[in-house]
Amino acid sequence: MNRDKIAEILGAFKDGRLGLEAAIEEFRDFPTKSLGYATLDTHRELRVGFPEVVYCAGKSPGQVKGILAELMAGGRDVLATRAGEEHFAAARSLSPDFAIDPVSRTIVLRRSPPPGPEAPYAAVVSAGTSDAAVAEEAAVTIEAFGFRCERVADVGVAGIHRLFERLDLIRGARAVVAVAGMEGALASVLGGLVEVPVIAAPTSVGYGASFGGLAALLAMLNSCASNVSVVNIDNGFGAGYIAAVSLRNLTQR
Amino acid sequence: MNRDKIAEILGAFKDGRLGLEAAIEEFRDFPTKSLGYATLDTHRELRVGFPEVVYCAGKSPGQVKGILAELMAGGRDVLATRAGEEHFAAARSLSPDFAIDPVSRTIVLRRSPPPGPEAPYAAVVSAGTSDAAVAEEAAVTIEAFGFRCERVADVGVAGIHRLFERLDLIRGARAVVAVAGMEGALASVLGGLVEVPVIAAPTSVGYGASFGGLAALLAMLNSCASNVSVVNIDNGFGAGYIAAVSLRNLTQR
Amino acid sequence: MNRDKIAEILGAFKDGRLGLEAAIEEFRDFPTKSLGYATLDTHRELRVGFPEVVYCAGKSPGQVKGILAELMAGGRDVLATRAGEEHFAAARSLSPDFAIDPVSRTIVLRRSPPPGPEAPYAAVVSAGTSDAAVAEEAAVTIEAFGFRCERVADVGVAGIHRLFERLDLIRGARAVVAVAGMEGALASVLGGLVEVPVIAAPTSVGYGASFGGLAALLAMLNSCASNVSVVNIDNGFGAGYIAAVSLRNLTQR
Amino acid sequence: MNRDKIAEILGAFKDGRLGLEAAIEEFRDFPTKSLGYATLDTHRELRVGFPEVVYCAGKSPGQVKGILAELMAGGRDVLATRAGEEHFAAARSLSPDFAIDPVSRTIVLRRSPPPGPEAPYAAVVSAGTSDAAVAEEAAVTIEAFGFRCERVADVGVAGIHRLFERLDLIRGARAVVAVAGMEGALASVLGGLVEVPVIAAPTSVGYGASFGGLAALLAMLNSCASNVSVVNIDNGFGAGYIAAVSLRNLTQR
Amino acid sequence: MNRDKIAEILGAFKDGRLGLEAAIEEFRDFPTKSLGYATLDTHRELRVGFPEVVYCAGKSPGQVKGILAELMAGGRDVLATRAGEEHFAAARSLSPDFAIDPVSRTIVLRRSPPPGPEAPYAAVVSAGTSDAAVAEEAAVTIEAFGFRCERVADVGVAGIHRLFERLDLIRGARAVVAVAGMEGALASVLGGLVEVPVIAAPTSVGYGASFGGLAALLAMLNSCASNVSVVNIDNGFGAGYIAAVSLRNLTQR
Amino acid sequence: MNRDKIAEILGAFKDGRLGLEAAIEEFRDFPTKSLGYATLDTHRELRVGFPEVVYCAGKSPGQVKGILAELMAGGRDVLATRAGEEHFAAARSLSPDFAIDPVSRTIVLRRSPPPGPEAPYAAVVSAGTSDAAVAEEAAVTIEAFGFRCERVADVGVAGIHRLFERLDLIRGARAVVAVAGMEGALASVLGGLVEVPVIAAPTSVGYGASFGGLAALLAMLNSCASNVSVVNIDNGFGAGYIAAVSLRNLTQR
Amino acid sequence: MNRDKIAEILGAFKDGRLGLEAAIEEFRDFPTKSLGYATLDTHRELRVGFPEVVYCAGKSPGQVKGILAELMAGGRDVLATRAGEEHFAAARSLSPDFAIDPVSRTIVLRRSPPPGPEAPYAAVVSAGTSDAAVAEEAAVTIEAFGFRCERVADVGVAGIHRLFERLDLIRGARAVVAVAGMEGALASVLGGLVEVPVIAAPTSVGYGASFGGLAALLAMLNSCASNVSVVNIDNGFGAGYIAAVSLRNLTQR
Amino acid sequence: MNRDKIAEILGAFKDGRLGLEAAIEEFRDFPTKSLGYATLDTHRELRVGFPEVVYCAGKSPGQVKGILAELMAGGRDVLATRAGEEHFAAARSLSPDFAIDPVSRTIVLRRSPPPGPEAPYAAVVSAGTSDAAVAEEAAVTIEAFGFRCERVADVGVAGIHRLFERLDLIRGARAVVAVAGMEGALASVLGGLVEVPVIAAPTSVGYGASFGGLAALLAMLNSCASNVSVVNIDNGFGAGYIAAVSLRNLTQR
Repeated sequence: MNRDKIAEILGAFKDGRLGLEAAIEEFRDFPTKSLGYATLDTHRELRVGFPEVVYCAGKSPGQVKGILAELMAGGRDVLATRAGEEHFAAARSLSPDFAIDPVSRTIVLRRSPPPGPEAPYAAVVSAGTSDAAVAEEAAVTIEAFGFRCERVADVGVAGIHRLFERLDLIRGARAVVAVAGMEGALASVLGGLVEVPVIAAPTSVGYGASFGGLAALLAMLNSCASNVSVVNIDNGFGAGYIAAVSLRNLTQR
Repeated sequence: MNRDKIAEILGAFKDGRLGLEAAIEEFRDFPTKSLGYATLDTHRELRVGFPEVVYCAGKSPGQVKGILAELMAGGRDVLATRAGEEHFAAARSLSPDFAIDPVSRTIVLRRSPPPGPEAPYAAVVSAGTSDAAVAEEAAVTIEAFGFRCERVADVGVAGIHRLFERLDLIRGARAVVAVAGMEGALASVLGGLVEVPVIAAPTSVGYGASFGGLAALLAMLNSCASNVSVVNIDNGFGAGYIAAVSLRNLTQR
Repeated sequence: MNRDKIAEILGAFKDGRLGLEAAIEEFRDFPTKSLGYATLDTHRELRVGFPEVVYCAGKSPGQVKGILAELMAGGRDVLATRAGEEHFAAARSLSPDFAIDPVSRTIVLRRSPPPGPEAPYAAVVSAGTSDAAVAEEAAVTIEAFGFRCERVADVGVAGIHRLFERLDLIRGARAVVAVAGMEGALASVLGGLVEVPVIAAPTSVGYGASFGGLAALLAMLNSCASNVSVVNIDNGFGAGYIAAVSLRNLTQR
Repeated sequence: MNRDKIAEILGAFKDGRLGLEAAIEEFRDFPTKSLGYATLDTHRELRVGFPEVVYCAGKSPGQVKGILAELMAGGRDVLATRAGEEHFAAARSLSPDFAIDPVSRTIVLRRSPPPGPEAPYAAVVSAGTSDAAVAEEAAVTIEAFGFRCERVADVGVAGIHRLFERLDLIRGARAVVAVAGMEGALASVLGGLVEVPVIAAPTSVGYGASFGGLAALLAMLNSCASNVSVVNIDNGFGAGYIAAVSLRNLTQR
Repeated sequence: MNRDKIAEILGAFKDGRLGLEAAIEEFRDFPTKSLGYATLDTHRELRVGFPEVVYCAGKSPGQVKGILAELMAGGRDVLATRAGEEHFAAARSLSPDFAIDPVSRTIVLRRSPPPGPEAPYAAVVSAGTSDAAVAEEAAVTIEAFGFRCERVADVGVAGIHRLFERLDLIRGARAVVAVAGMEGALASVLGGLVEVPVIAAPTSVGYGASFGGLAALLAMLNSCASNVSVVNIDNGFGAGYIAAVSLRNLTQR
Repeated sequence: MNRDKIAEILGAFKDGRLGLEAAIEEFRDFPTKSLGYATLDTHRELRVGFPEVVYCAGKSPGQVKGILAELMAGGRDVLATRAGEEHFAAARSLSPDFAIDPVSRTIVLRRSPPPGPEAPYAAVVSAGTSDAAVAEEAAVTIEAFGFRCERVADVGVAGIHRLFERLDLIRGARAVVAVAGMEGALASVLGGLVEVPVIAAPTSVGYGASFGGLAALLAMLNSCASNVSVVNIDNGFGAGYIAAVSLRNLTQR
Repeated sequence: MNRDKIAEILGAFKDGRLGLEAAIEEFRDFPTKSLGYATLDTHRELRVGFPEVVYCAGKSPGQVKGILAELMAGGRDVLATRAGEEHFAAARSLSPDFAIDPVSRTIVLRRSPPPGPEAPYAAVVSAGTSDAAVAEEAAVTIEAFGFRCERVADVGVAGIHRLFERLDLIRGARAVVAVAGMEGALASVLGGLVEVPVIAAPTSVGYGASFGGLAALLAMLNSCASNVSVVNIDNGFGAGYIAAVSLRNLTQR
Repeated sequence: MNRDKIAEILGAFKDGRLGLEAAIEEFRDFPTKSLGYATLDTHRELRVGFPEVVYCAGKSPGQVKGILAELMAGGRDVLATRAGEEHFAAARSLSPDFAIDPVSRTIVLRRSPPPGPEAPYAAVVSAGTSDAAVAEEAAVTIEAFGFRCERVADVGVAGIHRLFERLDLIRGARAVVAVAGMEGALASVLGGLVEVPVIAAPTSVGYGASFGGLAALLAMLNSCASNVSVVNIDNGFGAGYIAAVSLRNLTQR
């Protein structure tokens, strides 16, 4: 592929279609250009049907509105995360088509049809009702990228029978996201019950010695189950993104 | 009780059996004396059938041998913790009656008969084989104090069916000690399954981000189960001691 | 017990009272069902006369009002913790029977008569006036669960004679909750003075190098008294809950 | 499946092939038995061609030798990690068939043929020569589980052209393991260059403010690339295991 | 002293001025009573001319007003710390005699004449203008306790000539309080320049890796000057109190 | 130099131009005076064309206005950092000549002409748009001190081709400031690509396990590139100041 | 004083007793010389009868021997701290006059007579037998500096009556050193019982969550007693040094 | 430059000197090749007269010997850091020309003549004798890279007059390395006294709350002097390398 690109430039130069200066220009900062090209290439490939992601925190409603408008105009799907009331209003003022979710703080615009009920899916499993924001951010992310997601909420380990009632659904998933704050034990229990990678998202739910999610983070990093890896505290988007990439991995190539 | 002591001194003084100076002497540092007396009193009461506890770490074999000999001579029961090979040798050289356990690093001398099979018991539940040292220290402590202990080992949450197989035994206990390193999730799972206090003993088992047991400690402090309290990292003796005191609490007064 | 349940299903199946599909259904997710059943069983047993606990933090006044109304209607006792002014108003608008306490931030509805003056009791001992919120949360919890609680406030170790003045009351308790911020030394001093388990609740009272209660937490975990175990920073409810479970333990079975 | 198992027992009971007691026995602790059965089932499925994993640290050479002998006798494949010289000697004394690797500290016995050169593969990419132990533990784990692994070593970001020279190989992988100590920047750079999940394994390589790998761990958790998740410090086995599970995920069902 | 008290009770009892019950009562909880008495004694001795200290943070203006009124009525001197605007208003509404200082956030009422210009003094030395609140809290405390205080402000080590210009004044002090945030180097430099104890008060002045004063605290604890001891972050009162106690120590007994 | 100063005073004294008292005065606290003199001397030298720096945080608008007015009147150049809206208003009310920048939160008054396009320059390279505040503080500082600065923004390592596109500009710099939050990997990548000192400024951009910039700080301290040194979190001014001092170093003496 | 020194030089210069060059030399680096002179002056004053202190850790036996020999030859008193067996041997080989103490790891040579029994004294109070090394380092330091020291050992707060038995001795001290590891509560209790400054020396005695003495350090910094200041973990020398300087302070000037 | 390289390839291709395949090959992985080339180019330029650096820690004596031999054979200068006795022996066995320094743990081979006495220099200033290892590593590094270095040792701030005695030498330097452990105050004091960048190297010298150099590191990061930047704990090589690069910067281009 790179090969072809180079041959093409060389040919154009030999043919005279490309002057010396132009050819040099073409190769000049080749390290970056070709790298950029390759990257864009793979990115293009990767992003067929994938939404653009907008991180709203720290952006003004006007900025977010501008970005959303541009992406809409370009026919792109959109996922905006960490949005507040003011960003929701900006989206609503643009179009009624944006799906707005105050729990996950997301704004989604998706044009492609959702996956069918038989599609492979990721399960987003969360410990308590307070973990809903992070869990939903993960779930909405997975769906915004065009994949199927099943939610299993409020199955924390202090009442472990609730988890077992949903076990078949969880075991059917091709990727599992485990969302928990406080002591974060859910990730380890899940890791021992499924055969697929578990992406653990610690949350800042808790107080005192939870130290803003540190307790859950450390617990998940020390999981006695070997199939657990961890993302940053409250990083529902990241966990969902990895689940989506894992699902795409299944069908690709 | 204190009342009687005071009356006795007062009487002796009035009777002339005690001179002014002697009586003053008796009361002089009464704060400490009477306090000491009261404390000793309750301690005596408390220690009927209770062993003396010797913390061997940092003591020379000669020192430990001397203490053991003195306690033996006084007819006392003994529990020595954090003992090393050299302390074991010292004990063996004194008497074959010492029960020596290299796993829990304890030396025990107990003269009273063990509790019967129907006695209320504490359960010491541990996550992995590497937690055995701490778990056994807890169990030996409970037994050295004259109470019944049931051990449930190697039931970490990554293979949670192992825990359920032993659930009846655990649920029959009047106090539960939960011993776990790494992510320490066992304490929360146990807390949700039993109706009695769970004393959680985090262990330093793990590496990297376990930070010497900190991960398990924080997890246990943040347990979503409300009946879990926590002792210091690797403090099997403390956990066992609290379990023993809890069992005594049941039968006393 | 489980045995009987199983025999009953088997019998009903053999008798034809239960069809194959129904019997299978009965056993199908037996792991969770039976587990749920057992759990519920013990929970039922446990909850005779026990309140439902509502954690208000993060819940809207409307949500709390709805839960309180439902529990009232069901004749249940109620303990709501971490309530704010707006939750108090919601409770007041429902019924004048709710006991509202702004210090402990609790809402209580209790129909059963309180324990008599001779009942065994827990002592909640606190170091300073700033620790009152956590201490009262513990005390109200113990009482909401139907047990007797004695409060000993403002006996921090910097004026240790205040503690000794209340020693008889403290020594009469069957469980002691020690509440302290700053250096948390109260737990160790108490641990050396009583024969029962001490449940230590560190508070976030302090500034600078108290690091939000970390100093008190670490001090309590390192207590030189062996009968001290620790709950999370500011977790008055947890400490009170463990004291209540310990008192119930005394009278049960 | 569970359904069939239950129907089978019910049928056997109705037929009289199974007496009441035996049937009850079959169901008695069904929660655990059936759970165990299910778990074993999936485990069996999962483990076709998968090695048993032995964690040598803390085990005596005799213990390791015993386990290895048993697994060999059972015809099982074996992966032993964190082995020392004494464990190597134990393995050698059993059979010359064990593949012993002092760099990764692993012992492997694999009977199945390796995957072909066209098989999908994981790439294990490491920053410096000092990271070799962790990187090789990951790579050997992937291969021991029957998958193809490509190694890209010594491509730390301080000389980033080395990384680009190997980019095609890395981009061809279906799962990428990023192994780095010190500032752990490799994970972020890799995350931006590939389309598949990156499993980041921080190492304890470094000194001073690396705090035993904490610096690399935090860096990886805060990666600005969204497809990076993290395992514990020095946990090469875990990273390799997740890569292997991800590769299996591709071909399964 | 204690002796006299005891003799007095004994005498009263022998004389019949005190009945048995009353005498017992007198001695009954002697540990605390006598302790309390002794403590009060020393405290009384200690507090001749010493103000009562009121910690305003967390107290309502009404509470503070009440306490101030009571102390005024009793003719006591007063020092109130960590006062806010609302506490100032409360004090002003009581009497114009309160000295109110918004920088140190103190309220002082002192009736005794200030010490003469020849009195031994403490020096309060501070690094930057942002440290003024803590430095003034220390200085006002020293003066409220009746001792002389000299202030040396804004002599941080980044412009060390400023410190040397004031060296004679500093070297004349009998106790030195060093107040500094950021890197807290002032304490070490001072420690090397004076012959008296240096009480170091780290402040939370700084940002980023100052971690709320932790950097200064650690620096001061690790001072290469041997005469430096440290109080809590922002604890100007404590530093001033120790300086005052040290000055009193000079003149006492 | 000092020598000449001393000779001059001695000469003036011998000549009678300086009386004994005046000469003594000159030498009296020579340690500080001469030190002060030297310092001032070098500072004067250093500050030819250098602005005074005003740190606005914690200063009232009135205080800032007063300082600005005084500096303006004295013909001084000015750099004010960490300014808020209210400080901007104060500056505007004084003169329209102040350059006000809400992104970097700086106020600048510079009378000297800017450096020409051929002047040696520092490059301020930043990872993400959220790092702009710190990066601009560094850039404005460099320019306020009279040096040329080139900005390279939004070249974080997750899309590393963006960095390579700007590499020539970066490589032409004589000092490089690397500004990044989250995992801070930019500093290491830059360190490997340039031959001059890289001053790394970690930012508090991030959340969760970024711990307010600690992750980036530790990463930068552990950089595998040897030419990276680090300033405090969010200390754009410090990084810019060091770059300016480095540029001055090139042309001096 | 400085004034006279300057006048003297000026006079000598005017008189011709001092040439220009010599006078310049005298003033040349006056900042340091005069500073040095002043410092030495106070130091000389300070060190009349004070020992030289040698920190042995990290020095070879040969180095220590050399230093000791030189000091002996100069007639100086000596205190050497953190000495090991090899340093003891070096001292012994020099002279039998060195007092060698393996507990405190000190070597002392003191020629002056000890203080009389009526001399004011410091009390070194320690919590447990494991704290003896630090406590003795403090006590030996105080005595090596020529002051009287009373030791009160093994009075930790878990058995607080032991402390009260020694209270009169402690209350008679003019400075109190509190030595404790684990939870460090002794400092707070002592602070509430005495009227003089308490210098708290946390020790690294403990395990697990004591984090090498951090728990005791934080507890002491957060003491609810206002007269407590703190030195570094295990810094017995520093605590003793401050006590000695405080005692000297009493008698000086 | 890159331009010429590209033109050359294009010309050779057009001329037929280079076939299509060869030209493609030349450009194929141009991103890395050209990048590598560029990097090497600058590196070559950079390394004229610069030594190769060998990090010995973790390398066997045999490995180090091999590397040294190869570099010698290639006529290269050499700097080896973190060498132990065994690496010294390896170097000695190769050639007597290696300069071996056990203090800094370095091995140096330098063929070029040292810089003259008038060359611009860096000053390496260190606080205590225990900091010598790090300070010398910095100094030897500077000299190994061909620059002049002046050492100022043992000038810690607790005896600040020692620092002033050497101030002229320090002020003459064009780059200053500040090496200090414990409270690390030296960096701030130096920063206030010089006009050039100060590179601060915290050391792990200290104990207790120095936490392995963390106290010094934080102090240096929070320096109130704006010209201080920081390297990792004990990173003498890094500090020296930056000083060397800064000196080269002065003379280059």
